Amino acid sequence: MIRERHLLGPGPSNPYPEATRALAEPLLGHLDPEFLRIMDETCDMLREAWGTSNARTLPLSATGSAGMEAAFVNTVHPGDVVVVAVNGLFGQRMTDVAARCGAEVVAVDHDWGQPVDVDRVLSAHPSPAIIAAVHAETSTGVRSDIAALGAGKGDALLLTDAVTSIGGIELRADDWGVDIGYAGTQKCLGVAPGLAPFTINDRAFDRRVETPRSWYLDLGMLGGYVGEAGGRAQRTYHHTAPTAMVASLHAGLTRILDEGLEAVWARHQAVGDSLQAGLEEMGLELFAAEGHRLPDLTTVRVPEGVDSAAVRRELLERHGIEIGAGAGAYATSVWRIGLMGHNARPDAALLVLAALEDVLGRS
Amino acid sequence: MIRERHLLGPGPSNPYPEATRALAEPLLGHLDPEFLRIMDETCDMLREAWGTSNARTLPLSATGSAGMEAAFVNTVHPGDVVVVAVNGLFGQRMTDVAARCGAEVVAVDHDWGQPVDVDRVLSAHPSPAIIAAVHAETSTGVRSDIAALGAGKGDALLLTDAVTSIGGIELRADDWGVDIGYAGTQKCLGVAPGLAPFTINDRAFDRRVETPRSWYLDLGMLGGYVGEAGGRAQRTYHHTAPTAMVASLHAGLTRILDEGLEAVWARHQAVGDSLQAGLEEMGLELFAAEGHRLPDLTTVRVPEGVDSAAVRRELLERHGIEIGAGAGAYATSVWRIGLMGHNARPDAALLVLAALEDVLGRS
Repeated sequence: MIRERHLLGPGPSNPYPEATRALAEPLLGHLDPEFLRIMDETCDMLREAWGTSNARTLPLSATGSAGMEAAFVNTVHPGDVVVVAVNGLFGQRMTDVAARCGAEVVAVDHDWGQPVDVDRVLSAHPSPAIIAAVHAETSTGVRSDIAALGAGKGDALLLTDAVTSIGGIELRADDWGVDIGYAGTQKCLGVAPGLAPFTINDRAFDRRVETPRSWYLDLGMLGGYVGEAGGRAQRTYHHTAPTAMVASLHAGLTRILDEGLEAVWARHQAVGDSLQAGLEEMGLELFAAEGHRLPDLTTVRVPEGVDSAAVRRELLERHGIEIGAGAGAYATSVWRIGLMGHNARPDAALLVLAALEDVLGRS
Repeated sequence: MIRERHLLGPGPSNPYPEATRALAEPLLGHLDPEFLRIMDETCDMLREAWGTSNARTLPLSATGSAGMEAAFVNTVHPGDVVVVAVNGLFGQRMTDVAARCGAEVVAVDHDWGQPVDVDRVLSAHPSPAIIAAVHAETSTGVRSDIAALGAGKGDALLLTDAVTSIGGIELRADDWGVDIGYAGTQKCLGVAPGLAPFTINDRAFDRRVETPRSWYLDLGMLGGYVGEAGGRAQRTYHHTAPTAMVASLHAGLTRILDEGLEAVWARHQAVGDSLQAGLEEMGLELFAAEGHRLPDLTTVRVPEGVDSAAVRRELLERHGIEIGAGAGAYATSVWRIGLMGHNARPDAALLVLAALEDVLGRS
C-alpha cells in the first residue's frame, strides 16, 4: 500500500486531482478519433500555457530532460556555436547535451543562486547560432530574464528551459522572443512526470537539422502525427503516444485554464511569498539572490550544524512531507521546497513551515 | 466523457485492471525510498519477463520506439556494420535508427508476412558488429526464430525487438543469446504506453559507446539511477522518472508473474489459436506465413471489395472495438487484431469474431 505524500520538493508535485483521475479513465488507442481530439486540444492548451501561437507545440513522449535533448538535437548543426548561460545544474546539463549534438559550446558560468547576467551572455560570442538559458533554475530557485535575452539575441535562436516556470509564473514565449522551448509536466502543470511540453517557431524550424541524430525526437516526423495546426487532415503514425499521460495532461491544463493563467501565477506568487517570509521569520536564510527568487521553488540554507538528510528523512517519516536536497555542490547545505501546481496553496505553505519548525526543534 | 473501448488492435491493449488502478494511486517522488523499492522490484520482475539475469534491466522513461533508439545509440560506433533483418515496418525502422547512429547498415529484405530467414541474415556480412532482428513483427503478425540467430551470431552482438512478444509469447533472452533487447509496456504486458523495458548484458555493455549522442538514453548514466544489481547503495540522479507509469508497470508485472509466465504464454496461444480458427471458418484468409503466426497479434486479409477503413470505423462506432489497419503497403488490404495481455481472453476473441461477422454482413 502506497502511503500518501505531500510532494513539496523540486518535483514531481502532487498532481491536480483531475489529472490523477484522468490517468485511470478507460485507455484510448493513439489513433482513436477521440484521442486525436484530446491531443489536438492538449496542443491548443499548451499554446496558451507557453504564450505562443507556434503550430509546432506538442507534448513529447518522454520527460522534461528529453525535451532538452529534442531542443538541441533538432537545431544544432555540427560545429554550431551555442552560448549557454550556466547558473545551475540544468544550464550545466545543457552544455553536455549540446556538445553531444556536435555544438561548439561557449559556457557562461555564474555563481549558483544568481540570475543569468544578460550582458555577459549576449557578449559571449559575436555570432552564436543558439543562445540557451534556463528560465527558472530548479537547482537554485532563481528566475532569469528571458525577455532581455530575446531582445538582444540578434540573429541567434533563443532556446529556453521552462520546466519549472510553465503553469506557475509568467511565461510569454512569443512576446519574449523564445524560438525553442521545452518543459515538464510534473511541476507547476500539476501532472505526473512523463511528458515534455515543447514548442518551436517557424524561424527555428526552418533552420533545423533535416535528419537529426535522434529518430524518436525528430520534430520533422513528429509534426505529422500531432497534426500541426493547418495540417490536421494528414496524420502519419510515428510512435505510440502515451495516451494515458496525454489524457492526464489534458485534464491538468483544463484545470489551469479554467482558473485562468494569470490567477494561477498570482496564486503561486502569493503562496511562495508567504513561505519565504515564514522561513525568514524562523531565522532561516534564503539561498537564491533577492529580487530573483522563484515563488514556486524556494531554496533555503541548512542551518549550521544541522544534518540535512536527517531532517528530510524525519519530515518524510513523521509528516509524509518530501522536500528536496540541494543540487550539485549544495547537496547538503541547501534544501529545496516546492509549492507547485496543486500544492501552491496556503495550507501547504503552513504545513511545511510548521513541520520544519517541529523537526528542527527536535534536532 | 471518454467512452470505453475494446482495444483489439496492434496496441495499446486494455491494461490489466491492477495496472490502471496503480496509475491513480498517490504519486511518489522519484527519489522516495518507497518508489526506489518499487523501481527495484520492477527491474527484478522485468528480468523474469525477459528471461535474463542482466544487471542492466530497466524501464526506460519513454515508449518502445525510444527503446529501439537506446539500443542502437549506446552500441553503434561510427562505421560499425549493422546487419538488420527487415521483414516488416519495425525492421525497416531499425535501419533508419541505426543509420542515424552512424552505422553502415546491411539490410536483409524479406517479403512481409514471412519470418526472418536466419541463414540469409547470418551470411549477409562476414563480421558485423551487430545483428538486429524483430522477434514479433507488429506490422505483419510474424514470429521469428531469435534463438537460431543467437546460435549463429559469432562475435556479433544480437539486438532484439521484443515489443510484441514480452509477456505474451516465449521469450528467453539469455538462453537465446540476446545481448540487447527492448520492448514496450502497451502490448502483452498490459500497461498503458509510456515505458520501454530494456535489457543489455555485460558483453554488449563492455563494447558500448562511452559518450553516446543521446544524453537522455545514455545507459552509462541511467544505470546509476535505477541501481544496477549490486550497486543499489549508490543512487545518482539522472532524470525525473515517470513514477506513476513505473508504479503501473510494477502492478502489471505482478499480475503476470502471479499467474505465471508459462501460463500467460499458454493463455495467449490458446486465445490466438481460437481467433485464427474462427477467422478461417468465416472464410477469411490469414496474412502471416503458416507456422510462424503470432498468437497475440493476428493479421488477416481484407476481403476483395470490402472497404477496410469503413469496417474499422463501424466496429469502433457500433461495438466500441478498435482493430488495426495494416502497415505500409498493406494499409488497406490487411487488418491487425490483437488479443494481448488482459485482452488475451476467450470472450475477447468471441466478441471480435462476432462483431466482424456482424459488420461484414452489413457491408
